[in-house]
Amino acid sequence: MTFSSDDHRYMQQALRLAEAATRRAAPNPGVGCVLVKDGVVIGEGATLQVGGDHAEIQAIKDCYARGLSPAGATAYVTLEPCSHHGRTPPCAERLIAERIGRVVAAMVDPYHEVAGRGIAMLQAAGIAAAAGLLQAEAQRVHRGFLSRVTRQRPYVTLKAAATLDGKTALLNGVSQWITSADARRDVHALRAANCAVLTGSGTVLADDPQLTVRDVPCLRQPARVVLDSQLATAPSARIYDAAVAPVWLATTVADDARLQPYRARGVTVLTLPAQDGHVDLAALLRELAAAGINELMVEAGAGLHGALLQAGLVDEIVLYLAPYLAGDAARGLFDWPALSSLDDKLALQLLDLRMVGRDLRLQLRPQSH
Amino acid sequence: MTFSSDDHRYMQQALRLAEAATRRAAPNPGVGCVLVKDGVVIGEGATLQVGGDHAEIQAIKDCYARGLSPAGATAYVTLEPCSHHGRTPPCAERLIAERIGRVVAAMVDPYHEVAGRGIAMLQAAGIAAAAGLLQAEAQRVHRGFLSRVTRQRPYVTLKAAATLDGKTALLNGVSQWITSADARRDVHALRAANCAVLTGSGTVLADDPQLTVRDVPCLRQPARVVLDSQLATAPSARIYDAAVAPVWLATTVADDARLQPYRARGVTVLTLPAQDGHVDLAALLRELAAAGINELMVEAGAGLHGALLQAGLVDEIVLYLAPYLAGDAARGLFDWPALSSLDDKLALQLLDLRMVGRDLRLQLRPQSH
Repeated sequence: MTFSSDDHRYMQQALRLAEAATRRAAPNPGVGCVLVKDGVVIGEGATLQVGGDHAEIQAIKDCYARGLSPAGATAYVTLEPCSHHGRTPPCAERLIAERIGRVVAAMVDPYHEVAGRGIAMLQAAGIAAAAGLLQAEAQRVHRGFLSRVTRQRPYVTLKAAATLDGKTALLNGVSQWITSADARRDVHALRAANCAVLTGSGTVLADDPQLTVRDVPCLRQPARVVLDSQLATAPSARIYDAAVAPVWLATTVADDARLQPYRARGVTVLTLPAQDGHVDLAALLRELAAAGINELMVEAGAGLHGALLQAGLVDEIVLYLAPYLAGDAARGLFDWPALSSLDDKLALQLLDLRMVGRDLRLQLRPQSH
Repeated sequence: MTFSSDDHRYMQQALRLAEAATRRAAPNPGVGCVLVKDGVVIGEGATLQVGGDHAEIQAIKDCYARGLSPAGATAYVTLEPCSHHGRTPPCAERLIAERIGRVVAAMVDPYHEVAGRGIAMLQAAGIAAAAGLLQAEAQRVHRGFLSRVTRQRPYVTLKAAATLDGKTALLNGVSQWITSADARRDVHALRAANCAVLTGSGTVLADDPQLTVRDVPCLRQPARVVLDSQLATAPSARIYDAAVAPVWLATTVADDARLQPYRARGVTVLTLPAQDGHVDLAALLRELAAAGINELMVEAGAGLHGALLQAGLVDEIVLYLAPYLAGDAARGLFDWPALSSLDDKLALQLLDLRMVGRDLRLQLRPQSH
């Protein structure tokens, strides 16, 4: 199948719908769908929350709501229509039943229950169906779902903030907001776009943060995950208030008596294998994926940030640099063992650079994996 | 005098001429001049090297070379015409002799021999003359000369390069180019725009640099200044080759026998007062100004950079950040005593931000002075 410039335009529209639906639909992919007949958009839809309609069904309903029929239309979907009975019936069957004329998907759904069967089902019914239009863009929009399904771990975004000389706090541990209110609002928007926020015991002990979304509108508070290998944090820490948002404790401790005070506050405990006395980070990410976390944001200290980067478990870094210098005696951004050669430094790809208020905001991709 | 939009346009043209002439004219200000009659540019000029014509004379000669007369024209000059007999006769006298109709200067010349007398001399001769059009822009273009004349020190630009986490080298001292060839070419252009480049003994010992301009065209090699309080560097260091470009040694040592090997290579020795065993930095800058250095670039290590910043002696920082992380065990950018409060961090104003190849280039102004 060849794709016209109109095809590209309608798929871009579907991708915008998908982007807006991603957080709502999680852990399902937030798919977008646009129905077009005779050069006119006759229906739009995006996946609802779990158990609700998928994008294709929403678009068909939207079409009927406009008093039109989807028969003969082209359906643009950001992910291959599903072919299996999950919480809802297969979308491919519905597209066939509605006598859709042509189906264009941005990409095949790698989920093992679909994996090309949706396209095949449509083609078997005589419908022209193909995947691959704006595939890279769709992979970006669906990155969390794809990461969970194909890598069994969330898409991990690490957020860090420092002065222009890379300092986060003073040597005596004194920390305070280094970045501006604009950057902090941006951080809240980043939190709102993630299924969960991970922090470490050091950050909880030093700052007693809530890690909730407060400064921007939020559809659904992300879960908070505290990595506390040896239970150094107090059960009374603010983050353990499960009434505000779900909260998980990842630890190597299995002693029920010690875990009880956390559970009493509504905390879900994940007891995980240890590696050198610390929670095995890869195991933690596998557990979070199994629990339906598509996108994970990390807001912790230099130790956990450094360990995740060194383990190749970070997909993106959002780095805020404030226009200040703190000097070499202050604390740095990323802690890992000394390099023996500068050739071993971690290379980054710059994805985006912008000003957020008076601060620089860099979006970076580690090149090690 | 009120200024029209045409006045602004011609002064901008004069400022462009000034900018291009600054390095050539040093230690004189690189002034620009545009002569306009009946809405037509009839002459352009900029200050030649020391002892050569000033901008006004060049513009008048250019006018005659075009077969035209400057009588009755408006002269736009980026700095008040001189009123004194220096190495050349006063420009104000010549403007009067040529029966120029009107003189617009961007700013008064603060040099004590002029300081408003040029404008007064013109006005006394019946010529409409005023200063103040695009004054801030002229102060920027003439910043080196103005700093030397009004503050008795050069305009100081500190250049530093680091990874995105603020690291310049490994803990074991192993250093290498962190930034790309594009950034290094940009550094050479920066050197070419400065009268002198200052470095410290640590950098000479570690890297044995030449600090000459090699990768870009260069009108005149900047002088090199080595700050070596206790004569730790070897006289055989590459930087002490005075045949390549002038080189000065700033030290607290006054022992002629110890200084002789440096002098034998053509090095000019500046013996300066000590402060805690180190050369007094303010005294060094005064000496450099007295020697005619308008703009000084600093390319040194974290110690000298930190000391200059702490002393409030840095006017601008050009910071290159390469897309890498080196980790907290590596060496930092700016060394000074630990801060007791983050309120004491050094605030910076962002003047410019751009990409140079794959690196970020930030131009910053310390806010402490």
